[in-house]
Amino acid sequence: MAMKNYRQFLFLLVAVVSVGFVSIVFVLQWVLYFKEGLAWDGGLAEFNWHPVLIVTGFIFIQGIAILVYRLPWTWKCSKLMMKFIHAGLNILAFAFAAISLVAVFDFHNAASIPNMYSLHSWLGLTAVILYGLQIALGLCVYLVPIIPESMRAVFMPVHVYSGLLIFTSVIATALMGITEKLIFGLKNPKYKDSPPEATFVNFLGVLIMVFGALVIWIVTCPAWKRPNEQLLSSQPTSGGDATRTMGGTVLSICSTTDWNDPEANCDTRKRNNKPDQSGQRSTV
Amino acid sequence: MAMKNYRQFLFLLVAVVSVGFVSIVFVLQWVLYFKEGLAWDGGLAEFNWHPVLIVTGFIFIQGIAILVYRLPWTWKCSKLMMKFIHAGLNILAFAFAAISLVAVFDFHNAASIPNMYSLHSWLGLTAVILYGLQIALGLCVYLVPIIPESMRAVFMPVHVYSGLLIFTSVIATALMGITEKLIFGLKNPKYKDSPPEATFVNFLGVLIMVFGALVIWIVTCPAWKRPNEQLLSSQPTSGGDATRTMGGTVLSICSTTDWNDPEANCDTRKRNNKPDQSGQRSTV
Repeated sequence: MAMKNYRQFLFLLVAVVSVGFVSIVFVLQWVLYFKEGLAWDGGLAEFNWHPVLIVTGFIFIQGIAILVYRLPWTWKCSKLMMKFIHAGLNILAFAFAAISLVAVFDFHNAASIPNMYSLHSWLGLTAVILYGLQIALGLCVYLVPIIPESMRAVFMPVHVYSGLLIFTSVIATALMGITEKLIFGLKNPKYKDSPPEATFVNFLGVLIMVFGALVIWIVTCPAWKRPNEQLLSSQPTSGGDATRTMGGTVLSICSTTDWNDPEANCDTRKRNNKPDQSGQRSTV
Repeated sequence: MAMKNYRQFLFLLVAVVSVGFVSIVFVLQWVLYFKEGLAWDGGLAEFNWHPVLIVTGFIFIQGIAILVYRLPWTWKCSKLMMKFIHAGLNILAFAFAAISLVAVFDFHNAASIPNMYSLHSWLGLTAVILYGLQIALGLCVYLVPIIPESMRAVFMPVHVYSGLLIFTSVIATALMGITEKLIFGLKNPKYKDSPPEATFVNFLGVLIMVFGALVIWIVTCPAWKRPNEQLLSSQPTSGGDATRTMGGTVLSICSTTDWNDPEANCDTRKRNNKPDQSGQRSTV
């Protein structure tokens, strides 16, 4: 199944992955070069796991989890396998976020700094809890076989909206965290004196914003959605029996695929009717 | 033209306007009761215009400007009049944002505090500049009559995406600003000691988040989009001549309305084909 505007998609995908990687390099450079490094000792080096795990897991891995259905190379894989990958990446991101919370609570407790006083902590903890609920609900609705297809279809808009809301909230919360850390962590010179660390970490914040903006652009473009399973299975390359030829080494997973998956309904409306005009997003 | 899920829309509209109003009350209470009040004297009371104008203009008015096409009572008004209202509200929000920047620069200069050193200032100034560009481009593309309809249609996804990106970035930047101000403004007791002001302003941050989340939920629901002009003009209530019966007192504006407006293309695809399943959003 050919993807519309494939070159543009590829360019944006390379951009989003590159910006994500550079963000991870930046956060590592921040804690390893400008700050106290990484350790699990209750001190500042333990706190440093907090930004590293948030940027790597809660932002980068979550962003990739959101995009994973859009990769055209995976359209030959079963929807079920893609659901496992989507869920697996989100669970991994959740684990990163949870450990990052432990690091910051440990550090606060050891240094007798109160927990949960800042807006950053309120929104951050809310985001982690909602993310856990989102994953649990997603697993129940889309991976428990007895759930009726109608319910899956009804729940899909909520699942997508809350997923993107959590993702953008995490980015906003991370930017608040960067602000807090630069104010508290820079004493002489201060943040307002713009030492190299301040400018460097400001750029990290900009990179995180750009990463989020690219993820949202790619994921909201209707032309780049995974086609519904009927369309995929009718392609000549599938050899007439989609469940056998898709996924290669993951054939055992493919065999339980749900080909008439209701989650593809939103796509179906668009793809089976009039074609999109130059892949316009439809949230107008 | 009847709106799908009208009661749900009405409930959410009341909620979003209420949360917006309470946010404005909170920011006024913050500066008038907890802080130094409002004045234009180069001091802290001048700085206080910054959060007040940002919450009132750059967040609340911009949010209403985004939602204005969704109000079903306006569907009888011409698209052109709605464009004027949308543009007018955005220009008003831009003016509030620009004055709020003057307030903070004035305060910084009088107190010899450097400008533009923080991530908050970087992202905030970028958001104001991009917002100005967005308004200028929007005016050129959608209100200059000679612009071809094909160009308007091609530009629409970019206009919508960048509008929502700017809106969410403004909210993220405001949360960073709240964080900065609570850290810098609270000395004895400090922010970490959770004085009443800290908790109160944290709630303001939560309200702003909820406002943004509600705006995005309403605006991305396909069932609540303004129907395309052909559908509206074919309603019995329009009396067969839409340009004459719509808009009442704004009939002179109605006369130049663009009934086959390309901006409605995204709607057209959805509404003229299979009906939406319970108004599902389509950014899946």
